[in-house]
Amino acid sequence: MENTQKPSGMPTHKYRPFHEQIRVDLPDRTWPSQHITVAPRWCAVDLRDGNQALIDPMSPERKRVMFELLVKMGYKEIEVGFPSASQTDFDFVRQLIEDDVIPDDVTIQVLTQAREHLIERTYESIRGAKQAIVHLYNSTSILQREVVFRTDKQGIIDIALEGARLCRQYEKTIPETTVYYEYSPESYTGTELEFAVDVVNQVLEVLEPTPERKVIINLPATVEMATPNVYADSIEWMGRHIRNRENVIISLHPHNDRGTAVAAAELGYMAGADRIEGCLFGNGERTGNVDLVALGINMLTQGIDPQIDFSDIDQVKRTVEYCNQLPVPERSPWAGDLVFTAFSGSHQDAIKKGFEAMEARAAAEGVTVDDIEWAVPYLPIDPKDLGRSYEAVIRVNSQSGKGGVAYLLKSDHAIDLPRKLQIEFSGVVQAKTDAEGGEVTSDQIWSIFTDEYLPSSVAEDRWGRFELLSTRTQSDLSGDVRLDITVRDGDRTFEASGSGNGPVAAFLEIARSQGFDVTLYDYVEHALSAGGDAQAAAYVELQVDGQRLWGVGIDGDISTASLKAIVSGINRAIRIRERDLTSASA
Amino acid sequence: MENTQKPSGMPTHKYRPFHEQIRVDLPDRTWPSQHITVAPRWCAVDLRDGNQALIDPMSPERKRVMFELLVKMGYKEIEVGFPSASQTDFDFVRQLIEDDVIPDDVTIQVLTQAREHLIERTYESIRGAKQAIVHLYNSTSILQREVVFRTDKQGIIDIALEGARLCRQYEKTIPETTVYYEYSPESYTGTELEFAVDVVNQVLEVLEPTPERKVIINLPATVEMATPNVYADSIEWMGRHIRNRENVIISLHPHNDRGTAVAAAELGYMAGADRIEGCLFGNGERTGNVDLVALGINMLTQGIDPQIDFSDIDQVKRTVEYCNQLPVPERSPWAGDLVFTAFSGSHQDAIKKGFEAMEARAAAEGVTVDDIEWAVPYLPIDPKDLGRSYEAVIRVNSQSGKGGVAYLLKSDHAIDLPRKLQIEFSGVVQAKTDAEGGEVTSDQIWSIFTDEYLPSSVAEDRWGRFELLSTRTQSDLSGDVRLDITVRDGDRTFEASGSGNGPVAAFLEIARSQGFDVTLYDYVEHALSAGGDAQAAAYVELQVDGQRLWGVGIDGDISTASLKAIVSGINRAIRIRERDLTSASA
Repeated sequence: MENTQKPSGMPTHKYRPFHEQIRVDLPDRTWPSQHITVAPRWCAVDLRDGNQALIDPMSPERKRVMFELLVKMGYKEIEVGFPSASQTDFDFVRQLIEDDVIPDDVTIQVLTQAREHLIERTYESIRGAKQAIVHLYNSTSILQREVVFRTDKQGIIDIALEGARLCRQYEKTIPETTVYYEYSPESYTGTELEFAVDVVNQVLEVLEPTPERKVIINLPATVEMATPNVYADSIEWMGRHIRNRENVIISLHPHNDRGTAVAAAELGYMAGADRIEGCLFGNGERTGNVDLVALGINMLTQGIDPQIDFSDIDQVKRTVEYCNQLPVPERSPWAGDLVFTAFSGSHQDAIKKGFEAMEARAAAEGVTVDDIEWAVPYLPIDPKDLGRSYEAVIRVNSQSGKGGVAYLLKSDHAIDLPRKLQIEFSGVVQAKTDAEGGEVTSDQIWSIFTDEYLPSSVAEDRWGRFELLSTRTQSDLSGDVRLDITVRDGDRTFEASGSGNGPVAAFLEIARSQGFDVTLYDYVEHALSAGGDAQAAAYVELQVDGQRLWGVGIDGDISTASLKAIVSGINRAIRIRERDLTSASA
Repeated sequence: MENTQKPSGMPTHKYRPFHEQIRVDLPDRTWPSQHITVAPRWCAVDLRDGNQALIDPMSPERKRVMFELLVKMGYKEIEVGFPSASQTDFDFVRQLIEDDVIPDDVTIQVLTQAREHLIERTYESIRGAKQAIVHLYNSTSILQREVVFRTDKQGIIDIALEGARLCRQYEKTIPETTVYYEYSPESYTGTELEFAVDVVNQVLEVLEPTPERKVIINLPATVEMATPNVYADSIEWMGRHIRNRENVIISLHPHNDRGTAVAAAELGYMAGADRIEGCLFGNGERTGNVDLVALGINMLTQGIDPQIDFSDIDQVKRTVEYCNQLPVPERSPWAGDLVFTAFSGSHQDAIKKGFEAMEARAAAEGVTVDDIEWAVPYLPIDPKDLGRSYEAVIRVNSQSGKGGVAYLLKSDHAIDLPRKLQIEFSGVVQAKTDAEGGEVTSDQIWSIFTDEYLPSSVAEDRWGRFELLSTRTQSDLSGDVRLDITVRDGDRTFEASGSGNGPVAAFLEIARSQGFDVTLYDYVEHALSAGGDAQAAAYVELQVDGQRLWGVGIDGDISTASLKAIVSGINRAIRIRERDLTSASA
């Protein structure tokens, strides 16, 4: 079997292999035989490295939301900005301190270059904090020395030492704050190891780490330049050569240029590091920082407590998407919309048998399935542990050639379903077509869709218990909106009022007052370009009395469309519960 | 510095470490000291593993587009379907063969389970092909044996051997086709290595590999269950224990559940594998297959020819997005919209100095920058080599607190710019605000936007050379559209006609006939929900006479909006060229 691949003509002459640039020689490496057994110290840098890589950086309000999310999840070291480089960052750090929102067991971290006016400003920013990590960096790589700083090794060492000395000096100006240090030889992956350890050891002499006040030495893959085993080799090498090792916390900060940041973090941690810096879902410069969600949940699948709460991953995702204004990709590990979905018949069959076997085993042992070891093919984790569910998507006949359900809804009706709703609706279509058989046309799909999500206005077809009849909102622009509605409930009508930061929040308050336990998980809206008038469609993912499902609303008023979507979801939840009761009693 | 992290309450008791499930013991491993020096044999499985994981599987037309893309890029082994499991796949394989579109040096691959009626159907599907790889698989893992097949090891071996024997038998029914074999112990990562090699060696006895007809043994990480070094250890172990190794091609097929598929492929390849199966941009079940784009371009950055053409990565991305109906994420390695963008001032400064140093070095050596080694900080590859460009995004003042440019355009004007246009427009805003100084308001941003992209209809403000005055289209639904337009060109008007598969293609034909070398790179449209009437916005990324830029059009008619967007792009290209000429002559 001949290999017929041909030269591509890509300009290989412009690139030199990494091992010809930087020597990393560790034939007696030990990390490949290690196993991870305990969570590292985490440091979340979403508010600094992540934020600086956004087209639209976070507003102060979004920054606060991100900070609160990170605290809630359990991160204890949080890099909150580069206060000397940005007034916004400075103000945000001040706000955190002055509003007293930093819990006692959380340490904020601030980045600074090794220049006096920046260091001075950095200490001003953290005044009044109980404790803080000052993160000092300067660039050490061959390329940056030659091209950016035009200096020799001694020049780079001087910059680092001067910075460290200034830090020690300004530290005295804020005696009420316990200051810890982190030092990064930036562009570490492009630095000769012997030089990197020389800089680090000299900086450590100035920072004087002690058992009570260890110093963090962060070794960033500022640019990921080689396979991840090379990074791990370099970390093990550094661990052997850093002086006063027992008082040093070795930290990793992998970027993802080659798509191997998660591996670099894991192998580097096996190679002796103590701490990992990264961002939720891998936000950050270019291809991003290492993904803290992937790293944490990878540990959970090995029975290791990540010491971070991932039990409601959808809520985490939604918050991060709001803060970053960037979507989390469909196939993002453990969190993407498609990662707990099986489309293939053989996978679905195996998964079904896996669930059955677990139930049988639990029953035999007299316990619940949550008490026994997880063992389901193609699902390396129980989606329930992340607040998700497994979805089996069965192909409908219409997909054999004419385009799928979602595609037809979009092309024929301008309805652009969110991925998870696409998955839910595929199941609805399948249930109908199983019952009726045959090929499904675009018209049939539309009719199934409207019947399922958009209750008919024709009286005899009316199936939903609730119907929105009128709305009135009042806002004095203080951030609080009052909503008054009239609703049909079966054959009677009633009026109700609620308030919240918007009509949706106010409406959810009303729903709860009517006895429905409703939580909003996702919300998407778009205008419909088809149809001539500017109608809007709103899609909401709800949990109604423990049941997760979607609702859809269409209206000329986008706000009304979203309220209709919630009504649609509640009506569907009632209908499903009634069907379940009927089939249980039958 | 105390570690204050706390137990998360996540259910660690449900999960057992991988090394307690499967023993992979290779203390004398050699792969960590290897370097990759040559491209592996690639096999693209987008049309099978990728396609089966789509919410909307590809239509035959989309499949053909994907096949042609893979061929054009240089892939020589292409898995085109699972013909015995799906009529659509069967028809597609027949169509490829009967339409005679498979180049002589390309080998199609078809997947089959080890069951007689499926094998028979598989051979029917490839009848008439010059050559084909029949890819036989059965599941071998501990979990699948217990839960799905409820059989012992011998039962699994019997399934594999019976399948292999049937293949040899049905092979005789199509003597005009050269049949090669691939065997996969599916769920290999959950299989004891001793058992995996036992199955493989017994199957090889039936398939009888020879130097001329080697057999592919594919070792899939069907589910990624451990750190990637463990996969590499297992591959090196298998390579030592597979009999007749010289006539066996060891193939990798990593899935990305833990986010480490690229690393697993690279380390596994260093561990002695010969071949890698994956998908463009990592499409595939759940979190996807390994990303062939990341793997290939990673090699290029080490001076290794990937033997695949990535020189127009945007076109590849656009085609894949069309086929898969899934977006390629913003931070996807080497290809995402944000990966060649620098937002931070210190990064921008270093990049600028890197470019200057390269130019100086090239000048000193009397060559062009394309002749010398690439060395620019924060850019591990020259974006030009992929048909991309580097973008420095400078923050505008308005972003300090009130939301960024893109955010304000969206919230105040319902204009939802594609990421790359957001980046371009940030530069436009920066240029204006540098000149004028001060904070930028939402109104100013809107005025800069309309002036830049949407030529004023007021005569005295009119700056664009061209203006669309009328359009007429004719289509007999045969797939060919005729377009007649009236255009203002400076102070005169002219009429022109063109044809194409749609108005945009027809319009581009007209533009070319007017002497503009125009290529369309990206096209996005959406309805504007603001403003009361259903206006649509269209955004096009064009290359006009060698210059890459965006155009924008807004109109009640979506088709007209897209033509206006092209006019906007051409007008901008003319204006930029004229400015360059003016400044050159000044």
